[in-house]
Amino acid sequence: MTQAAHVFDDALALTVLGAAGEGRYAGRTTPAYANMVGPFGGITAAIMLQAALQHPAWAGEPLALTVNFAGPVADGPFAVSAVPTRTNRSTQHWSVQLTQAGQVATTASAVFGTRRDTWTGSETPAPGVPPAPTLAPLPEQVPVDWLRSYDIRFVDGGFSEREVADDSVTTMWLRDEPPRPLDFPSLVARCDAFFPRIFLRRGPVAAGTVTFTVYFHVGAEQLAAVGSSYVLGRAQGLNFGRSFFDQSAVLWDEAGDVLATSHQLVYFKG
Amino acid sequence: MTQAAHVFDDALALTVLGAAGEGRYAGRTTPAYANMVGPFGGITAAIMLQAALQHPAWAGEPLALTVNFAGPVADGPFAVSAVPTRTNRSTQHWSVQLTQAGQVATTASAVFGTRRDTWTGSETPAPGVPPAPTLAPLPEQVPVDWLRSYDIRFVDGGFSEREVADDSVTTMWLRDEPPRPLDFPSLVARCDAFFPRIFLRRGPVAAGTVTFTVYFHVGAEQLAAVGSSYVLGRAQGLNFGRSFFDQSAVLWDEAGDVLATSHQLVYFKG
Repeated sequence: MTQAAHVFDDALALTVLGAAGEGRYAGRTTPAYANMVGPFGGITAAIMLQAALQHPAWAGEPLALTVNFAGPVADGPFAVSAVPTRTNRSTQHWSVQLTQAGQVATTASAVFGTRRDTWTGSETPAPGVPPAPTLAPLPEQVPVDWLRSYDIRFVDGGFSEREVADDSVTTMWLRDEPPRPLDFPSLVARCDAFFPRIFLRRGPVAAGTVTFTVYFHVGAEQLAAVGSSYVLGRAQGLNFGRSFFDQSAVLWDEAGDVLATSHQLVYFKG
Repeated sequence: MTQAAHVFDDALALTVLGAAGEGRYAGRTTPAYANMVGPFGGITAAIMLQAALQHPAWAGEPLALTVNFAGPVADGPFAVSAVPTRTNRSTQHWSVQLTQAGQVATTASAVFGTRRDTWTGSETPAPGVPPAPTLAPLPEQVPVDWLRSYDIRFVDGGFSEREVADDSVTTMWLRDEPPRPLDFPSLVARCDAFFPRIFLRRGPVAAGTVTFTVYFHVGAEQLAAVGSSYVLGRAQGLNFGRSFFDQSAVLWDEAGDVLATSHQLVYFKG
């Protein structure tokens, strides 16, 4: 029996162009991650990391990823190139570009490295929240198609609270829909799954991410242990003004360990 | 009377190589910003932004900067190249590289853009703290030379509290020493002036920034209004474990307006 690929794997499928070591790939947007216009930024960010992970020179575990949304990505085919800019004994740096019709649409830098056992500590404890299954799923009608590729359970700061709020905090459980084991690219996409914080302060206005950063806090093994469980996320805007605001997010596993922290700068209108 | 350049301007001096539009520059490290080994990361980050600001194609105001410390920068000369990767109607994206002896040492991406009057709000209020002049300056003996190029007044979480603390918060006033009007490059450097948060949790251990991001929250005009006053900064580590931790910082002006938010991922040992 042949099983169809998961929508996430389908969206991340990159065809190698030329020799593997050249780091050149062909990809295309997919309907499962369609946004208002073009693809969901989180899936584009995941593709940027995937391009490095698929390169034969890749070494270490993902530590950080910064993705710059330099221009709109149109629905359809795109090219990606991934180049290692420097490889050290314990870290490796990458430069990734996504182009459409020869024009740069997205740029990214990624850092990989070797992790060793060290002291651990956290100053971002997971909030105490009800378990995901006790919370309402998203309504049938969602504003953008990519939300159908996630199972999101709002704890607070959900869509229904779009009246102007005093703060921009959203706490939510999320996993892929259908469920899929967590890996680094899907963790990246989940970090961008929080709607723009300005919506909670000003209602729905035009908004788009300009630059997006993820810091990874666990290795592949701990990530695999999450499997297709929910992860808990919390996001909040820091400062809003003169066309831009920033928002930060933390993702925890069900045990309360930090999986990733994430930050982004977002354009907004009004 | 000829006045010697400020140490910060001296450190940022880049000589244009070739035609101006090529974006190629020659620079060198300076003793005023020397770190334990090589230069203070904040000055390197400032140089990366400066390379784009000095390019004739530069348009808009700095919105975001991400600097990846791909390898050590040695004391001595370096080359910088700044390339606009995409220019839109209201944003412009840059790629910047610093090389030494033909090897990439530092990479960066910068985003510039047009700001318009919009709704403003903040969810990172400035803490109430005593005015800078009422607080003790740094002691005569500082662990690294670049600290002599800053006037830092710790409110809490200072060097003297290097016994293991329960959290990694530092609140401090800072300005250039000697005083110098604030601009975008000096704001970048100040965002990196907080010592590694792991020191507050574990005492002095080997640590080094891997990647560093600054989001700018004000335009040139508001920055100029700060002049050579102190800015208030607060930094805290988010999550520590398996060789890496991240820390976030906010810088406010004396009126409590957010000037910049900043995030970094840091390697540590032990």
